[in-house]
Amino acid sequence: MRIAVWQARGPDAGSVRLADAAARAAAAGADVLVTPELFTTGYGRPFGPPDPGLVGRWQEIAAEQRIALVASEPHEGRITAVVVRTDGTVAGRYVKTHLWGDDERAAFTPGDGTPLLVELAGLRCGVVVCYDVEFPEVVRGLALAGAQAVLVPTALDDEAVARVLVPARAMENRVAIAYANQVGPGFCGASVIVGPDGRDLARAGRDAEELIVADVVAADLERARGLGDYLADRRRETYRW
Amino acid sequence: MRIAVWQARGPDAGSVRLADAAARAAAAGADVLVTPELFTTGYGRPFGPPDPGLVGRWQEIAAEQRIALVASEPHEGRITAVVVRTDGTVAGRYVKTHLWGDDERAAFTPGDGTPLLVELAGLRCGVVVCYDVEFPEVVRGLALAGAQAVLVPTALDDEAVARVLVPARAMENRVAIAYANQVGPGFCGASVIVGPDGRDLARAGRDAEELIVADVVAADLERARGLGDYLADRRRETYRW
Repeated sequence: MRIAVWQARGPDAGSVRLADAAARAAAAGADVLVTPELFTTGYGRPFGPPDPGLVGRWQEIAAEQRIALVASEPHEGRITAVVVRTDGTVAGRYVKTHLWGDDERAAFTPGDGTPLLVELAGLRCGVVVCYDVEFPEVVRGLALAGAQAVLVPTALDDEAVARVLVPARAMENRVAIAYANQVGPGFCGASVIVGPDGRDLARAGRDAEELIVADVVAADLERARGLGDYLADRRRETYRW
Repeated sequence: MRIAVWQARGPDAGSVRLADAAARAAAAGADVLVTPELFTTGYGRPFGPPDPGLVGRWQEIAAEQRIALVASEPHEGRITAVVVRTDGTVAGRYVKTHLWGDDERAAFTPGDGTPLLVELAGLRCGVVVCYDVEFPEVVRGLALAGAQAVLVPTALDDEAVARVLVPARAMENRVAIAYANQVGPGFCGASVIVGPDGRDLARAGRDAEELIVADVVAADLERARGLGDYLADRRRETYRW
């Protein structure tokens, strides 16, 4: 699977620039484009209002470019991420489970942790949003459910998360992770695609919009497991919580 | 608490060089010295035989230098780590729960996960060994039980563990971690003391014996929690495993 991550500056009313990024990602041969959290409607104080036509527009873009999309929007008072397949059908919607800080908690209701797993270009992909990925419990749960890659829209201001935690989540579960952040005031860029050995496959800078692309294939996941098969070596009966 | 980590080349029959390292760590003002996994008897194939006088020798060294020691030895067919207090008394023994690879599994029996938590110089310290720390479940369990620092004897050959996983374990639990590795053929050094924000406080090189020292105080742990209080923000009821 070829994954593209678009590190972008929001908002993007009408997904005009997202359409352009999708065209560029498709031209680069990507199977899926991952975009930042609440990026089209705007992340901030106040959060932008929901746009009822947004998912339909994403379906048009995906079908037109023959690329899958992971994109985030507010929906029924929750922060969500939608997966659209290359044929323009909606594969599913995930609700963010761990809200970050007082502003999000005042504006949104958290999800109940129902996982979203979708097969894209032959790999089983889990989807979570931003703060969710910082909890090892979340990505472990997806990996135990069979995820081979985890796709993460985010809106991050603390680069340590992108540098320290995201590579660890990939390595400790032997999955690939694509982490798409915003840039601009209040955001730190550093979007990244990490392989199952914990190494960066591609990483964006801190300040500019950027499209990064990397390949993840099942053989890489197998090879990484040979370095230490954490899922097989867990001793669940010894964990005290 | 001032923590010293001795990155050392094994074996060290009779703990002669350990006594010297403890004197140097004490002279540097350290409250505790963390040493590598199975370092005195020798880690390898075959593993060195148990030395029934080893803990007694460590008790003498600790009392003489007024420094706590974390040191590892084979004991009753298990890989263990012993904590000796500054007065020379044994505070406890931890048994490694996650054995690494076929050689360890052939030679040793794993522990049942019983945690070891010891107060040293005013901080609650957990102790685990090597592969244990690579599992987020293990360090999470210690942090939920109140650990503020985790002390880890190890014998590591894959530097990605020391670079990627150990900083993440510290950051995601808001604890300090001291990780003491061997050097020499088959080992990669890179011993490290990481703060609760995921940053290196001190890190050794890859090839030489080295004593590294860093301070960890309760105020640092509180400050790090202000960057994101992972323990408080967990949503345990949503985890599926």
